[in-house]
Amino acid sequence: MTKIYLDNAATTRPDAGCLEKAKIYLGDKFYNPSSMYGEGYDIRREIDKSRENILSCVARAEEFELIFTSCGTEADNQALFCGAKRGNVVTTIGEHPAVYNAALELKQRGVDVRIAPLLKDGTVNVDNLLSLVDEKTSIVSCMHVNNETGALNDIDGISALVKDKNPAALFHSDGVQAFGKIPYRLGKCVDMYTISAHKIGALKGTGALIKRKKISIKPYIYGGGQEKGMRSGTENVFGIKMFEFAALKRYSEISENYKRATDMFELLCSLLDPSFFKIIGERDMERRSPYVLCVSAPGVRGETILHEVSDKGLLIGSGSACSSNEKKRYSRVILAQGVSEAEADGILRISLSPETTSEEIEKCAKILNETVKFRLEMMK
Amino acid sequence: MTKIYLDNAATTRPDAGCLEKAKIYLGDKFYNPSSMYGEGYDIRREIDKSRENILSCVARAEEFELIFTSCGTEADNQALFCGAKRGNVVTTIGEHPAVYNAALELKQRGVDVRIAPLLKDGTVNVDNLLSLVDEKTSIVSCMHVNNETGALNDIDGISALVKDKNPAALFHSDGVQAFGKIPYRLGKCVDMYTISAHKIGALKGTGALIKRKKISIKPYIYGGGQEKGMRSGTENVFGIKMFEFAALKRYSEISENYKRATDMFELLCSLLDPSFFKIIGERDMERRSPYVLCVSAPGVRGETILHEVSDKGLLIGSGSACSSNEKKRYSRVILAQGVSEAEADGILRISLSPETTSEEIEKCAKILNETVKFRLEMMK
Repeated sequence: MTKIYLDNAATTRPDAGCLEKAKIYLGDKFYNPSSMYGEGYDIRREIDKSRENILSCVARAEEFELIFTSCGTEADNQALFCGAKRGNVVTTIGEHPAVYNAALELKQRGVDVRIAPLLKDGTVNVDNLLSLVDEKTSIVSCMHVNNETGALNDIDGISALVKDKNPAALFHSDGVQAFGKIPYRLGKCVDMYTISAHKIGALKGTGALIKRKKISIKPYIYGGGQEKGMRSGTENVFGIKMFEFAALKRYSEISENYKRATDMFELLCSLLDPSFFKIIGERDMERRSPYVLCVSAPGVRGETILHEVSDKGLLIGSGSACSSNEKKRYSRVILAQGVSEAEADGILRISLSPETTSEEIEKCAKILNETVKFRLEMMK
Repeated sequence: MTKIYLDNAATTRPDAGCLEKAKIYLGDKFYNPSSMYGEGYDIRREIDKSRENILSCVARAEEFELIFTSCGTEADNQALFCGAKRGNVVTTIGEHPAVYNAALELKQRGVDVRIAPLLKDGTVNVDNLLSLVDEKTSIVSCMHVNNETGALNDIDGISALVKDKNPAALFHSDGVQAFGKIPYRLGKCVDMYTISAHKIGALKGTGALIKRKKISIKPYIYGGGQEKGMRSGTENVFGIKMFEFAALKRYSEISENYKRATDMFELLCSLLDPSFFKIIGERDMERRSPYVLCVSAPGVRGETILHEVSDKGLLIGSGSACSSNEKKRYSRVILAQGVSEAEADGILRISLSPETTSEEIEKCAKILNETVKFRLEMMK
């Protein structure tokens, strides 16, 4: 049975073409980029080329620099733990656990951590967030696209308002679900931006923190001084080259992909039976990503549906894959946007890739409609 | 020109057989191990199998557990930053920068960091180290095999003496250059042990911290709660499976490899012209690893030799690859064992793999002898 994979917000299938190009870094080009002979130096240059190419997808190399990390989570941790100073830290209840749990740890350590609520569409309540920012705020972290709901925050607008209140506060955004998907370039008030490779057809084990050159933060991992001292540890050369190839591919077709994903999103919304499914959040693309659709099937547990449809060859998520380790029945993020517990129990996340076809969307909707219908009838 | 690669302490060529077995994790088995459908759960089980298999190479699963990290450096950082408490931290001047620079950062933060000197053979001065340990010591970190010199510390003996003085002190060892090479199983007083994949034929981007189950340390990277909450971030599945396959291969032949490496080491020592080269450290295998040979060619800069021999197809190191980012002329580690600056300027590191042949060793010695002879004659 050919699987329909619609859990691309969790991870993506590595791109075969990129793998073909990158495999030389598992073979003849295996050298340590810190080695002093030519073969090592060549690898170092290749990494710097990857750095430039990935950075140029979303930012100007004159203003920003890119630090390779082992994943988006590490980049988020570096932003939070190394960006937070005495005073307070402002973030949102909608954040990925990589930011949210780092913020909770800061709180444990005595930092004043302030958490802004969400609106019904899953975006942050900007007025409330701004009310939490004061002259003692060292960093504000607000995600770009929510990994569970697809809600899209206007991070350029929010960061500008934050800087109006406190020009010295750093503004960080987790851009993992936006990078390679939402046409966007870093605005003039965004200081740090987290990206990840395995969400765009590259590999688990590589991420990056993009930072404005003029801001100074400490490293989070200390050692041999790689990444200009900002992230030690031998560079994951193969993962970095894959990241570069996948990013260049995604950005070469980002507008077409975005339009296509929007069509697929609309198609899926139109095919899901409204008597079974409620769409969480807005359908307006100004306020959301077309790559992530979160729906609720009130009366049926999301986990039940997920397992039944997977038996029928449809692979989708139930909230965030990263949150599945938390073993909490209801998603903090979903509840925070005013969804009731009854609805939050039936949450499903359907996440698209640029390769998702209309046939897959049609089959997906059919399987979901049939599964929920059957389940509800059984319960009568 | 076929290269002779004798810089295996910097990184190793990925094992082709292991790559062949692992490539399915870049293809059909690309799923996120935290996903709740069967395909994701299967990957999680595969990771747990890797965990058990790697752990069993050096420790009993009843007593120890293994946390996958992105590299040895991250594992060292977790041990130091999460193991250090109020009081003091004891380490050695011979440590890899991943421990040494983490310790310096702890010092910056106000922790009392105490650094033990080395003996002439490059091992730690145990009496001195013990004199630094007191009832307020929270952690002692002493590497197993030195990455620059191959000096081998008796970590079982040292950890037992540390526990005699302070049973509550944690004992950590960076085992990156020992794992897969030195026949060894974790002794009863070692609490944490760092290992790395890319030094044994697996890939850059994967490491692990082995820790005694009964000791409790905090995570270093916070987020989705992977690795039982001890290391968040989507698991680098391909890197982890490669690590498993390479570790199993190395441990299935570790005694034969060790004996062979010892023979190759002796052969190399016997072929290097003693009028040009001085061997740094002991040749007694009780006090060193046969996989790393550090020599000095007084009167000629190591860097000069390194570049000249690389033009002749011989790739070797000059001290530690990780230290090359520090841009310091003399190695802290080499000077600490009493080597003069004149000698330290000519330092070369020749590091073997189980695949190193006697032909390669012979050619290596010939190239090195000729190069230094020519260089010294030029300078007359």
